[in-house]
Amino acid sequence: MAPTAAAAEQQQLLPQARKALGLAAHDASGHLTPIRITRRNTGDDDVSIKVLYCGICHSDLHTIKNEWRNAIYPVVAGHEIAGVVTEVGKNVARFKAGDNVGVGCMVNTCRSCESCEEGSENYCSRIVFTYNSVDRDGTVTYGGYSELVVVSERFVVRFPDGLPLDRGAPLLCAGVTVYAPMKQHGLSEPGKHVGVIGLGGLGHVAVKFAKAFGMKVTVISTSPEKRQEAVERLGADAFVVSTNASDMKSVMGTMHGIINTACASTSMHPYFALLKPKGKMILVGLPEKPLQVSAFALVGGGKTLAGSCMGSITDTQEMMDFAAKHGVAADVELVRADEVNTAMERLAKGDVRYRFVIDIGNTLKTD
Amino acid sequence: MAPTAAAAEQQQLLPQARKALGLAAHDASGHLTPIRITRRNTGDDDVSIKVLYCGICHSDLHTIKNEWRNAIYPVVAGHEIAGVVTEVGKNVARFKAGDNVGVGCMVNTCRSCESCEEGSENYCSRIVFTYNSVDRDGTVTYGGYSELVVVSERFVVRFPDGLPLDRGAPLLCAGVTVYAPMKQHGLSEPGKHVGVIGLGGLGHVAVKFAKAFGMKVTVISTSPEKRQEAVERLGADAFVVSTNASDMKSVMGTMHGIINTACASTSMHPYFALLKPKGKMILVGLPEKPLQVSAFALVGGGKTLAGSCMGSITDTQEMMDFAAKHGVAADVELVRADEVNTAMERLAKGDVRYRFVIDIGNTLKTD
Repeated sequence: MAPTAAAAEQQQLLPQARKALGLAAHDASGHLTPIRITRRNTGDDDVSIKVLYCGICHSDLHTIKNEWRNAIYPVVAGHEIAGVVTEVGKNVARFKAGDNVGVGCMVNTCRSCESCEEGSENYCSRIVFTYNSVDRDGTVTYGGYSELVVVSERFVVRFPDGLPLDRGAPLLCAGVTVYAPMKQHGLSEPGKHVGVIGLGGLGHVAVKFAKAFGMKVTVISTSPEKRQEAVERLGADAFVVSTNASDMKSVMGTMHGIINTACASTSMHPYFALLKPKGKMILVGLPEKPLQVSAFALVGGGKTLAGSCMGSITDTQEMMDFAAKHGVAADVELVRADEVNTAMERLAKGDVRYRFVIDIGNTLKTD
Repeated sequence: MAPTAAAAEQQQLLPQARKALGLAAHDASGHLTPIRITRRNTGDDDVSIKVLYCGICHSDLHTIKNEWRNAIYPVVAGHEIAGVVTEVGKNVARFKAGDNVGVGCMVNTCRSCESCEEGSENYCSRIVFTYNSVDRDGTVTYGGYSELVVVSERFVVRFPDGLPLDRGAPLLCAGVTVYAPMKQHGLSEPGKHVGVIGLGGLGHVAVKFAKAFGMKVTVISTSPEKRQEAVERLGADAFVVSTNASDMKSVMGTMHGIINTACASTSMHPYFALLKPKGKMILVGLPEKPLQVSAFALVGGGKTLAGSCMGSITDTQEMMDFAAKHGVAADVELVRADEVNTAMERLAKGDVRYRFVIDIGNTLKTD
């Protein structure tokens, strides 16, 4: 699945295709500029979607700057896509023109492996990501930083009534990334105590979902200045500073689980001490260096360290419905398409409360 | 819970007590010699047990040599105890004199914490281990390397008919240590594929339980010479050498779970690659150095690293009943009480197939 000029050329030559405006990075500077990309026409199983909003995930930044060394330029990022259906193929039953819909991190999978068959297609080894990925037809996928996406019905979710499109868009990646493992690992039961490490895009929605589940939530952060916001605005029950020994001691052995959204720390030991016996730490961030894990910490208390990546389409739909029902949505800063490079600079510094969302529908225009 | 001369003295002064012969280590040489210890008389909730067999667990070796730096000398080790009831207290309902019974790793817990209440008393923070532990009355516990043990009914299990006492004794620690997490983590379902790392005391019974569950079992070992025994004698379906890249590649992505009984290796990465998406590695050994765990390996496949320590009394009884029903028992080398130091030397070199069991009943006698 290497990037190929042939694939790019093939995309240009698709018989049934149309041009669409997008925002692309062309090299590791990550600088985004308008681009005309090609989208396939609506196939029999496809849903064509006019993009209205697209969240900016930290993965977008990693990819446009080629920090994961896998960029296929030009990169049109964006996998937190909210929009409205403009056209559907003849086999599409679940959507019609005018429906509000969302697209998350994936737009195709093999559909026949064990993971696909059991509804865990987010772990399909032939997964096609929403952008920077080679689709089964050989074309490179372009994401939601564009006015139009064409996606197989199977990978489109309904946007339930009551969930605003701008604040709901980030749930399609950040939301399901924390919601799915919380459900899978039993960290969604009222009265249980969950810790959330890191109060960024993922962490702040983890707090909201946990409160909506009826749980007790403690935010664990390196930034004392986030205390007020965590407790007063997001509704966390408690806030501890991970570098403050007395803070940490005060919650030792009290948590059923921890959602670890941090990418910086690699020593898990201080966090395992916060878990009750049989407690679970769910890792959803990707620290580059190997984690240091004491076997004694894990074995002695029967504790678990579990990784989790995104969620299935079923998880995603369930999460969106739950969010609408319980009033959960991301806290966002809406930016214009021509502000996206500034937003990326601020994101790189962690200067965002808590997710940038590009107002594609109103602001993505030719210069 | 520090060792105290006062506690030892207190034990000598218990008003209702009797002497019993045991085998004790007196210093970090770990050399075992006969000793007269004091046992309490049968209390209202107690079961007095004439010890017939006691397995030699690797923990015993660690403790008598003070390798975990927690030895309270004299140490009378042994927590794989099979014997016959000689007397029961007036409140004891489940046992009577003449019953075959077993005692595993613990003889007391707080009985009121969350772990105790939910039947996970093996994770009680106030657990009293069968030996080298300070009991709630202040006495130091002595284990099964002795002719008599007196144990609260709650921590005694029935030895089911058909399970031989000598080959069943090791199940009380080694058996439940692998059985409990296999059940807890869904690695007991027919048709699933489980890997077993390390073919020692724990590993060989893990293979037997997995086969009894109807699973496919692959042994992962550093020792090519164990291939024949693993496959032909223990019934493993396959055997791979962990240092052989082509062996390892042949089973990549095929396992639902791995029971990791090895204490030497600390890089988990090669093993995670053997797991299917959402696969689980269960750690039951205790490598001293921190494990190196790649977040990418865990997160990308939604994989889990879970520690597990012993099992509850309910787990233990269930495991013993299952073992009897399915003909699972340890492969043992029976040794005389006066051969125990030689057995320890051989165990330190890994020279045992697969568990030493001391024939206490017939051979523990005063010199």
